[in-house]
Amino acid sequence: MAGVQDHRLAIAVSNAGGLGSLPAAMLSMEVLKAELTQLSAKTDKPYNVNFFCHTPPTFSEAREAIWRAALKPYYDELGLGANNIPTGPGRAPFTHEAAEVLEAFKPAVVSFHFGLPSADLLARVRSWGGKIISSATTVEEALYLESQGVDAVIAQGLEAGGHRGHFLNIESGHALTQQLGTFALLPQIVKAVKIPVIAAGGIADAAGVAAAMVLGAAAVQVGTAYLLCDEATTSPIHRAALKSPAAAHTALTNLFTGRPARGIVNRLMWDLGAISSQAPEFPLATGAIASLRAAAEKIGSSDFSPLWSGQNASGCCEIGAAELTRRLTAI
Amino acid sequence: MAGVQDHRLAIAVSNAGGLGSLPAAMLSMEVLKAELTQLSAKTDKPYNVNFFCHTPPTFSEAREAIWRAALKPYYDELGLGANNIPTGPGRAPFTHEAAEVLEAFKPAVVSFHFGLPSADLLARVRSWGGKIISSATTVEEALYLESQGVDAVIAQGLEAGGHRGHFLNIESGHALTQQLGTFALLPQIVKAVKIPVIAAGGIADAAGVAAAMVLGAAAVQVGTAYLLCDEATTSPIHRAALKSPAAAHTALTNLFTGRPARGIVNRLMWDLGAISSQAPEFPLATGAIASLRAAAEKIGSSDFSPLWSGQNASGCCEIGAAELTRRLTAI
Repeated sequence: MAGVQDHRLAIAVSNAGGLGSLPAAMLSMEVLKAELTQLSAKTDKPYNVNFFCHTPPTFSEAREAIWRAALKPYYDELGLGANNIPTGPGRAPFTHEAAEVLEAFKPAVVSFHFGLPSADLLARVRSWGGKIISSATTVEEALYLESQGVDAVIAQGLEAGGHRGHFLNIESGHALTQQLGTFALLPQIVKAVKIPVIAAGGIADAAGVAAAMVLGAAAVQVGTAYLLCDEATTSPIHRAALKSPAAAHTALTNLFTGRPARGIVNRLMWDLGAISSQAPEFPLATGAIASLRAAAEKIGSSDFSPLWSGQNASGCCEIGAAELTRRLTAI
Repeated sequence: MAGVQDHRLAIAVSNAGGLGSLPAAMLSMEVLKAELTQLSAKTDKPYNVNFFCHTPPTFSEAREAIWRAALKPYYDELGLGANNIPTGPGRAPFTHEAAEVLEAFKPAVVSFHFGLPSADLLARVRSWGGKIISSATTVEEALYLESQGVDAVIAQGLEAGGHRGHFLNIESGHALTQQLGTFALLPQIVKAVKIPVIAAGGIADAAGVAAAMVLGAAAVQVGTAYLLCDEATTSPIHRAALKSPAAAHTALTNLFTGRPARGIVNRLMWDLGAISSQAPEFPLATGAIASLRAAAEKIGSSDFSPLWSGQNASGCCEIGAAELTRRLTAI
């Protein structure tokens, strides 16, 4: 949940008996270290640190020009000089530098999205006894992850908010149709692998947790339900969207980062189509959007903000994350 | 399950304690009557008759020409004269004529897909005490159906095989992104309505049934798992696809009828894209495909066959439908 939480949410969840998670994809090494310092000081329970593990693309002047041309009407509308739009922050993959920071804290679990990093990086995590988990969006991906020796696999159903974790056959025009709903994905992965399976996607309350267990999950991963928690850093505009009827309609969109991720449908998605070939490769699409988002949010508009959410925001509660964690495990 | 079953599957399911269903959308009035005669003779248990309830579109010469032009390379490949392709059978909506046939049999339940027929048609079903059910793919659709007085609503999750039942906002470019996975749709509909909710989509075995119940379902609707049953009329080519690794990849496609329906991805879907603006309105797309399908199937090819399947074909068993019904309720 990069961008919507820091160590505080993770601490509350871990101390309540869940596995709190720190999203590291948008953190500099200095901030990662500071976050882990806080986290490890305030819980003696296990926690997870989550990383992306994409291969950063080569910047293409031509693709960036296409993207900025598509966004030019919005720059004009918001009074931003289209020729002077600075590039916003992106998302970094797991590196040896990050592994070095982790080594001092020895997190019990390190999770990855978009597959796995290289074997030498995985070996560094294992060197301190760290467990490794990653997301699968198809049975094929689950089998691949198991073959790489992960300790558990997350079955990420299509309902889940944020980035789809798919990493095999992603160039295929049919990549998104290969994504399965939780009810179809979870039991098929459970049947296919021997390692524990963690269910994700559409799980919003204790009944959802119990249903996932009935389908064979060893644990669940819940994201959206925590977005309104006191400790979440979810922006006021994002919180308002989650509490509005708009939250009933999410879509996978590549407009905000370059990779498909599920968020509440907003103006940019209506205008350009949720999936657009004009968006540059992940994570480069983010750069040109950042100024638009900042300018629009300043005037109270969510037109250009990524409003990450799963398909089931009904479990969002404006309470402490510890209390939500207890409620989720109440059956 | 129009096209893959007749009264025999319905009889087996009803006699085993389930609610067997007869799909009527592709039946002439004579065949409907004959099927109901068989069905009512061989079970004294309740059964359901299922109808589509679309408004038949006006035939457009121009759209048909575009569609036949798109298919011309295949007519040529299969040695069919593109100018002499007869129009195949379509799908008919529920009518007073059909209600007249039903009246003699008084089925306990009549279900509809694509919303509901007119109030006078619903009144005819109610006149013999028939219960009325229909599919909802969003919370909004469930609330609409409840307001129309249906006795139960089917929460049709995105995993489900065959036609999506969506009927509100279907002209929107975002209609398909409004479709929710079962894990998100089911509990949100359960919370929103007071009538019983029947879960559909991705349910393949007894654990799936139990999980749906935990999420608040009063019953489940299972389709794909029955496709290999002894009593199903599923074609040999369709059966082979369901048993092959290809079954892992389904998509929503409008190529076979004009409305999005989930089937196993095959050549036509790869070639034209699963969703194509070239396909005429439902159910007119079917006409020009029928000859291709027949010619291809004759040489053992499923290139042009609608291979309806949900996202979870793992429950398909080559056994009797009574035995499958018992297994599904074994928890």
